[in-house]
Amino acid sequence: MREIVVFSGSAHRELAHDICDALGVPLSESVTSRFSNDCLQAQLLANCRQRDVYIVQPLVPPTQDSLMELLLMVDAARGASAAMVTAVIPHFAYARSDKKDASRISLGGRLVADLIATAGVDRVITMNLHAPQVHGFFSVPVDHLTSLGELAAHFREGDLTGSVVVSPDLGNAKDATQFSRLLGLPVAAGSKRRLADDRVVIDSIVGDVEGKRAIVLDDEIATGGSIVELLDRLADHGVTEAAVACTHGLFAGNAVERLRGHPMISEVVTTDTVPPPPGWPALKVRSVAGLFAEAIKRIHEGESVSSLFDGVDPTHAPPRQRSLFERVGG
Amino acid sequence: MREIVVFSGSAHRELAHDICDALGVPLSESVTSRFSNDCLQAQLLANCRQRDVYIVQPLVPPTQDSLMELLLMVDAARGASAAMVTAVIPHFAYARSDKKDASRISLGGRLVADLIATAGVDRVITMNLHAPQVHGFFSVPVDHLTSLGELAAHFREGDLTGSVVVSPDLGNAKDATQFSRLLGLPVAAGSKRRLADDRVVIDSIVGDVEGKRAIVLDDEIATGGSIVELLDRLADHGVTEAAVACTHGLFAGNAVERLRGHPMISEVVTTDTVPPPPGWPALKVRSVAGLFAEAIKRIHEGESVSSLFDGVDPTHAPPRQRSLFERVGG
Amino acid sequence: MREIVVFSGSAHRELAHDICDALGVPLSESVTSRFSNDCLQAQLLANCRQRDVYIVQPLVPPTQDSLMELLLMVDAARGASAAMVTAVIPHFAYARSDKKDASRISLGGRLVADLIATAGVDRVITMNLHAPQVHGFFSVPVDHLTSLGELAAHFREGDLTGSVVVSPDLGNAKDATQFSRLLGLPVAAGSKRRLADDRVVIDSIVGDVEGKRAIVLDDEIATGGSIVELLDRLADHGVTEAAVACTHGLFAGNAVERLRGHPMISEVVTTDTVPPPPGWPALKVRSVAGLFAEAIKRIHEGESVSSLFDGVDPTHAPPRQRSLFERVGG
Amino acid sequence: MREIVVFSGSAHRELAHDICDALGVPLSESVTSRFSNDCLQAQLLANCRQRDVYIVQPLVPPTQDSLMELLLMVDAARGASAAMVTAVIPHFAYARSDKKDASRISLGGRLVADLIATAGVDRVITMNLHAPQVHGFFSVPVDHLTSLGELAAHFREGDLTGSVVVSPDLGNAKDATQFSRLLGLPVAAGSKRRLADDRVVIDSIVGDVEGKRAIVLDDEIATGGSIVELLDRLADHGVTEAAVACTHGLFAGNAVERLRGHPMISEVVTTDTVPPPPGWPALKVRSVAGLFAEAIKRIHEGESVSSLFDGVDPTHAPPRQRSLFERVGG
Amino acid sequence: MREIVVFSGSAHRELAHDICDALGVPLSESVTSRFSNDCLQAQLLANCRQRDVYIVQPLVPPTQDSLMELLLMVDAARGASAAMVTAVIPHFAYARSDKKDASRISLGGRLVADLIATAGVDRVITMNLHAPQVHGFFSVPVDHLTSLGELAAHFREGDLTGSVVVSPDLGNAKDATQFSRLLGLPVAAGSKRRLADDRVVIDSIVGDVEGKRAIVLDDEIATGGSIVELLDRLADHGVTEAAVACTHGLFAGNAVERLRGHPMISEVVTTDTVPPPPGWPALKVRSVAGLFAEAIKRIHEGESVSSLFDGVDPTHAPPRQRSLFERVGG
Amino acid sequence: MREIVVFSGSAHRELAHDICDALGVPLSESVTSRFSNDCLQAQLLANCRQRDVYIVQPLVPPTQDSLMELLLMVDAARGASAAMVTAVIPHFAYARSDKKDASRISLGGRLVADLIATAGVDRVITMNLHAPQVHGFFSVPVDHLTSLGELAAHFREGDLTGSVVVSPDLGNAKDATQFSRLLGLPVAAGSKRRLADDRVVIDSIVGDVEGKRAIVLDDEIATGGSIVELLDRLADHGVTEAAVACTHGLFAGNAVERLRGHPMISEVVTTDTVPPPPGWPALKVRSVAGLFAEAIKRIHEGESVSSLFDGVDPTHAPPRQRSLFERVGG
Repeated sequence: MREIVVFSGSAHRELAHDICDALGVPLSESVTSRFSNDCLQAQLLANCRQRDVYIVQPLVPPTQDSLMELLLMVDAARGASAAMVTAVIPHFAYARSDKKDASRISLGGRLVADLIATAGVDRVITMNLHAPQVHGFFSVPVDHLTSLGELAAHFREGDLTGSVVVSPDLGNAKDATQFSRLLGLPVAAGSKRRLADDRVVIDSIVGDVEGKRAIVLDDEIATGGSIVELLDRLADHGVTEAAVACTHGLFAGNAVERLRGHPMISEVVTTDTVPPPPGWPALKVRSVAGLFAEAIKRIHEGESVSSLFDGVDPTHAPPRQRSLFERVGG
Repeated sequence: MREIVVFSGSAHRELAHDICDALGVPLSESVTSRFSNDCLQAQLLANCRQRDVYIVQPLVPPTQDSLMELLLMVDAARGASAAMVTAVIPHFAYARSDKKDASRISLGGRLVADLIATAGVDRVITMNLHAPQVHGFFSVPVDHLTSLGELAAHFREGDLTGSVVVSPDLGNAKDATQFSRLLGLPVAAGSKRRLADDRVVIDSIVGDVEGKRAIVLDDEIATGGSIVELLDRLADHGVTEAAVACTHGLFAGNAVERLRGHPMISEVVTTDTVPPPPGWPALKVRSVAGLFAEAIKRIHEGESVSSLFDGVDPTHAPPRQRSLFERVGG
Repeated sequence: MREIVVFSGSAHRELAHDICDALGVPLSESVTSRFSNDCLQAQLLANCRQRDVYIVQPLVPPTQDSLMELLLMVDAARGASAAMVTAVIPHFAYARSDKKDASRISLGGRLVADLIATAGVDRVITMNLHAPQVHGFFSVPVDHLTSLGELAAHFREGDLTGSVVVSPDLGNAKDATQFSRLLGLPVAAGSKRRLADDRVVIDSIVGDVEGKRAIVLDDEIATGGSIVELLDRLADHGVTEAAVACTHGLFAGNAVERLRGHPMISEVVTTDTVPPPPGWPALKVRSVAGLFAEAIKRIHEGESVSSLFDGVDPTHAPPRQRSLFERVGG
Repeated sequence: MREIVVFSGSAHRELAHDICDALGVPLSESVTSRFSNDCLQAQLLANCRQRDVYIVQPLVPPTQDSLMELLLMVDAARGASAAMVTAVIPHFAYARSDKKDASRISLGGRLVADLIATAGVDRVITMNLHAPQVHGFFSVPVDHLTSLGELAAHFREGDLTGSVVVSPDLGNAKDATQFSRLLGLPVAAGSKRRLADDRVVIDSIVGDVEGKRAIVLDDEIATGGSIVELLDRLADHGVTEAAVACTHGLFAGNAVERLRGHPMISEVVTTDTVPPPPGWPALKVRSVAGLFAEAIKRIHEGESVSSLFDGVDPTHAPPRQRSLFERVGG
Repeated sequence: MREIVVFSGSAHRELAHDICDALGVPLSESVTSRFSNDCLQAQLLANCRQRDVYIVQPLVPPTQDSLMELLLMVDAARGASAAMVTAVIPHFAYARSDKKDASRISLGGRLVADLIATAGVDRVITMNLHAPQVHGFFSVPVDHLTSLGELAAHFREGDLTGSVVVSPDLGNAKDATQFSRLLGLPVAAGSKRRLADDRVVIDSIVGDVEGKRAIVLDDEIATGGSIVELLDRLADHGVTEAAVACTHGLFAGNAVERLRGHPMISEVVTTDTVPPPPGWPALKVRSVAGLFAEAIKRIHEGESVSSLFDGVDPTHAPPRQRSLFERVGG
Repeated sequence: MREIVVFSGSAHRELAHDICDALGVPLSESVTSRFSNDCLQAQLLANCRQRDVYIVQPLVPPTQDSLMELLLMVDAARGASAAMVTAVIPHFAYARSDKKDASRISLGGRLVADLIATAGVDRVITMNLHAPQVHGFFSVPVDHLTSLGELAAHFREGDLTGSVVVSPDLGNAKDATQFSRLLGLPVAAGSKRRLADDRVVIDSIVGDVEGKRAIVLDDEIATGGSIVELLDRLADHGVTEAAVACTHGLFAGNAVERLRGHPMISEVVTTDTVPPPPGWPALKVRSVAGLFAEAIKRIHEGESVSSLFDGVDPTHAPPRQRSLFERVGG
């Protein structure tokens, strides 16, 4: 069996270390230099020849530098005759650019997927893409992990009586729907509207939330503006307390201030796909390093990755046999 | 300006004729032969050299034959030195295979998009893809038209008091949300659950429908099973009457029987992206041939296609100017 | 050494079973679903990760469904991180579309070879392509097996005195020429003509057949019409009895009726590259499952496949050493 | 309409001049330099920007230099922003490497087709490929012209009574079959055998030639060895006189000596796809420059090229309309 | 003739305006948005359909944002059915990453060239690449302009007596050599050495500079550190005064301070391929907007771009005719 | 571990044998045939299936035949299911065509790199490319070896007092600069000028050579014309004796006569990347077969190739660790 070599870009070295610890392999060294004209250059300090190389780099701010560093490291690994290069992108931020929602607009999600393939990536491991269709933007195989099991485990430790799962976006509520099943709770959703001045507002709540405790689930929280707006609408509908959960907790801008002291918020739960914000000890961070390590291990040993998610998400569960050429759907 | 040549596959020649009539060009002849080993062969009977070739073919049953006929016609056009080959696929049925919702499953939407590019298509014109992200599966430019304006025009002719737009799928309610804005109505959605025996059921309704008249909107209706099940759930929640609208009205299997006589259904409205089912004179079919013809005309004359949809969908509306590098989102 | 996983499409599961039996590996399960809009979806029920995956599927009627099922299974295997995907296509029916024999016509053989590569196939194993040049349509390595040894073994069991090998097509008589050498017999050929009404007729026999017993060899028999017409011409030239042999015995339409009771035909011999027609117990079917299994075994163990055909066909025989840069040809 | 610019490699400038004369455009200048390390470099001395560039170069000895010069000229044209680059390859000599007729052998025809595409060719114009399937080796559109009309016109000027068209190779007799139809003559063929020492011999004649005058047709004559051997066999079967015709008259090695004085040969007819051999005034050369010029003109003006060959070859004739999805073949 | 549409990224809108002024076309509007997760999105506000789109964007700091903005704008233009997309990259900063000068290092110049092609660029216009070989990194046609004529024009206005052109890098002195010819001056070069601690120093001067006035020429000046070091070495060799010239005057970090008051520097001359640094009125900036405009005009009108540089650089001069297949080199 | 199979083209079988001897594996047999139309065909006589195939072929005259033979052997290896095909090209002669130094000129270096990739090469091993940037022309990984250590070892055996390393080309003096460091000597360079009649002359010497013994270093010597011209200029500057060293000693045309008896030349040293010229016993040839064998061995065993060049060239030395994201350059 070929040897595993793991490198980390600059975006989130702590996660890379945790993955390596869980895998029982050392994190190999690399150097990223910034020339005085602001161009980057990557150099890998461990032998890659005929090895399976994994490069850990979530696309977090400064996002363009994170992306370019990843591409350059992949280029270096390919040029150094790696047998296979896997990009481990715990947060693929460009997944949010997943559709043409205005004319003559770039489709960043597909473009970045193509850039990654051009650089020489053979496989991608990622987690909770903004929409499941983004999987199809990649021309290389993708192992798409889910954090929903981790997040659900957190909430199962508490009392769920009278709770409702709420998605901020009615148009993209797949994860929330699945999360509500895992917790045995009902689901509701905010209905977004694009205003004349290009601002998007949540102007109504679809589903029954009156008097309930909300568990708001989003894939990514950046400035927290949408969450705060959703909470305002929920308050209009009789909700007084909410827990907030997300996979990718960027908490950029003044998000920490906004959310840390919000009177309706009982707790905020996230994972470590991105570095945690400073100055927020109460934030609950569930680590997904173990999931990534286990996925890498199974990939390396040729075992099934999907069975990692038995009971969490039928998307990932092992398939059952059905009769051939059966007729499905409606 | 180069000459336009339009061909039609066997799937829906009537629509191709209507598009040509609206364009004021003749429909060029072609022959598709079926060899005795069931292989197909396409031959184009009009000169394609240095011309802009458009091939009209929705992916309707027999879907694999429709797809292969399209690919062979594209291959013939490319081999005959067409300047540009545009596949006009009013219904891209494989868009429904848009995600890996089980392990080791094919991703038909992306695969077929790649096959179409391999055959030599330079551009695709299509309508109401199952999910807007499917646009990103294509490596060639896509003009993605919408029928929502046509369908909304139908409903605006009647009384909308006390109505609610209902999406069968909470996880994919973008079109319904947009449709409700066009009509100035609230929106609700069914919440689907995948059962242990692989059947998907709608087990709850998210949003307030009690006592309202439902306008159920789906992109495609095949057997009508999901619609009937949704109507049962709506009845449980106090809905007594529903109109049904869809872009792609396949009405396969016993859909006509199921829907034609359903006691709750006041009317069924669809478009002619696919051939209408026989034996259902009450079905209301709004033609989109004019929209396709106008799009082809604008493409040919280098005019904006997006402005076709002013006021229908901000996705298609002409963009407004904003300040540079402004910060967006939340 | 990596593990072998063999799947079968729906086209010919019996052959896949026989190949697996000869290989001593189980046939892995898969599910092909047909959605109500007639789109197909494939799911593989065995782990493919880092394994060598073989998918057995001849392109037999319904040919487009067979092809699409194969492409979707390949897509699923690639997406499931198979190390190498080999399409085992015992009958590559689209090989008959191997040339532009009319203007603006599709070249299906090359197109389908490209589609297969697009889906993610790394290698193809096939048998007796309609023309040897079709090998060059594929951009991936092809192991091109021959059934001529099997068919020749059959005829060597009988009396060959006074026999002549006859090819239906003078323009494509390579296999017949080789077959005649294997049997030590002379060769003759029908000369085809394309009529004004697009029908192809055999209007003369090139070579001496008078008073001989014909062994008619074709690569594929579909409706049997060409064979019957050839027999009529042979009768005109004094032939009274003929054996018929082919690699790919589709026997579509009313071929069974035509051939089973034909007064001139002494026997019909074919192989199991395609499923045998029902209701014809007298048809002699030589199995090539062993040849496919042996080829897969040799591929897997890195042994020469060509030496499988020592003494059968110099095309497949191991090469002899010659002096460097020698001058060849004339 | 874009401007045409025609360049010629070093292989056959006379043909390029004749094509330009027929087209009424000047032959543009270029320089091919040979560095002292034997590397070649091409420079085009006329502006190519946004023009349709045609580069005329048959693949004649020194074949590798001819090929590389063509590739470098194409590279220069593409780098100089040509709108479209067409390789005019009157003799595509590598077409003879069209199949794997031994194990682990190169497939030069497909390889060279791929190299040409890599260099940046958008379209190929060629004539009488060794096998019609070679058309399918190219990933770019090919206009495949035929010289059979020209050659047939020559023979129609004489007396054809008692003549028979003879192909040297039974396995590849398509052109001879078609030629015999054009002349209203019967057809016969030599049957080749590969000897143990890798020499190929013609060991029998299939078809009736006794007492007839042979018209031997081959696509290419190089050393003439095969022709002489065929004549020996024909003599064994009672043929005393033969005319020899070929499209590509290389007449390499001692071919001129062999054929010029051969007692059975009444005349040798060829075309100017390749430069005529020196010292053979009796050789009859029919020019195809006009056909190439007409093809270029039609390509440029967007007219049908196939209709150039009305009545010559149904392969090139304009298609007739047939009913849709008709069933063909047998 | 197709219409020209010019867009500008955020990197250097002033240059884009100047180019448009010289071209006599308006600069079209676009919007680049930065989402709160730091992902970028581009939207083009002018119709691109069937137009020739030019996007002006030098790769200046923040370089990764400049690059990604360019790629997204290209993606948007391609998706909006532009006929041809040209990236106008006056400073291609990644050209400095042009070789593997350490093991397992990224080759940024080639990688970025590939990324640009992946995004959909059809042609690149750039100026004074760090090394002329970088041209070969691009798979699309490149129009490589030179500023040497502009810079030489500046120095010709003064007294050149006793001057010598000095290149900072002996290993890459091609531009300086050419510049010295244009000015009729001798040339010298610094010899760089890579120190043990990875710092590169200039440790000797090759060529005679004693008592002369130096004209130091570099392609890019970033921090100015190399220039200052070169001046120290020149002082060691008896040089007391130097003019400094460069094409790409980034003047990053404290370059302005370093160079503005340097006692040996008589003047600093640069061009406007990048935005000029603030606070340095004495800096002499020669505009190359006219050259870019002229190049775009010639490209659009299908005229020769190379003749723009007649007498400046034989690299760009129109070629002279030479005899065919002449022998070159030594 | 997979098995190694090494083949040799016809260009330099002796080097291939020496590499195999050093590796301890036999040189496998192959046959290259030349057809009478001058087309080549390659056949490999050893099993390649799932093996790592190395094909040794420097691009030496006849260069086009050498290149095509290499491409055909690669095609044969790929078609024979080799696991990985490595082209060992000790002299990549087309590297000299590395820039567009005139308008509308071919860029042979990049083109040939692309052709090699098209044929199916997975990796290239080469030595002393004309310019280090040529590495970036390849889309596959390149192991770029250096002969400078071997050549320096030769000169270290003698007395270096009063010596100076001289590069013939100021514009491309990287190797000479590095060589001078290895020997602890100063460096000088000839300054080339392109004359009006396209001849390039060396018209001045940059650097101090007066009274010194020159060690002239070039990457390739073909006719020796440049060297002789450089010696004339050096004599003008007071040099009376010179040693000449090069990596690729083609010595074509009358180079042997020119250099063997040149009064200034004390010795000529080269390597065996190309076959040595006949009739020059005094030529000193240092073998690099061992370096190539060691590189192949390390590639095969997954060891670092760069450490082969410790102390020779920092380009190849193992990297040192530096702090992350440090700022580099000036």
